[in-house]
Amino acid sequence: MFDTVVIATDGSESVKRAVAVALDLAERFDATVHALYVIDASEVESSPESVRDQFRDALEESAEEALAEVTADTDLPVETAIREGRPAAEICAFAREVDADVVATGTRGRHGENRFLIGSVAERVVRTCEAPVLTVRQLQEA
Amino acid sequence: MFDTVVIATDGSESVKRAVAVALDLAERFDATVHALYVIDASEVESSPESVRDQFRDALEESAEEALAEVTADTDLPVETAIREGRPAAEICAFAREVDADVVATGTRGRHGENRFLIGSVAERVVRTCEAPVLTVRQLQEA
Repeated sequence: MFDTVVIATDGSESVKRAVAVALDLAERFDATVHALYVIDASEVESSPESVRDQFRDALEESAEEALAEVTADTDLPVETAIREGRPAAEICAFAREVDADVVATGTRGRHGENRFLIGSVAERVVRTCEAPVLTVRQLQEA
Repeated sequence: MFDTVVIATDGSESVKRAVAVALDLAERFDATVHALYVIDASEVESSPESVRDQFRDALEESAEEALAEVTADTDLPVETAIREGRPAAEICAFAREVDADVVATGTRGRHGENRFLIGSVAERVVRTCEAPVLTVRQLQEA
């Protein structure tokens, strides 16, 4: 059932638990794992033009680090991908492309509800991806 | 990892795919399955007092039907529960109570984004539950 697992990571604290949970799931199903990092195009575009290339390079470096972390955490082979665009839209497009059975991503752990999180990438992914979405909150203690 | 799976159902079309995906997951992990239906207290309270008891009875009947559907769809033993309160809050409280490893629920499938779905039960569950949440969109063709 879960033969193809996409793990969308931004390398932040808030995805660490999601990566762990998703890798456990993938291992149990002996799934193909795709680790995806989306460079937020709007972030790049809003940076001053004089530093834009360097900015993008820095984000690419962050992407590679984030993806390497996923790869290091499992014995499963992990295919990695870096995309640039609107994060949630790119995640869902990528999931369609690889025919994902589940897309895993993290959300920030906060006490109770945090209305500022409406519109976060994870919630857009929940709203828009056709694939099942596993959202994992980073817990306070982590 | 996924030893205890909570399936939150409202018996609607929009949870059917979620139930199927969650049961597949539970079967693979030989997990304990809890099927939960939350009677929306605010719906009960907003009904005319003269029919409130009948209204609640009708919702309880719907709950039993929805839970029986989950039970019928798997060979795993399913524990069923009916709660009354605010749906997302009750779902997350229940998940804590049974120490759920994942909470599965459905979201309505729509083309693209539908801002009216912000604040839906599934999205509140994503925002508030400590347990990982598996949201599964009902697809158009279903």
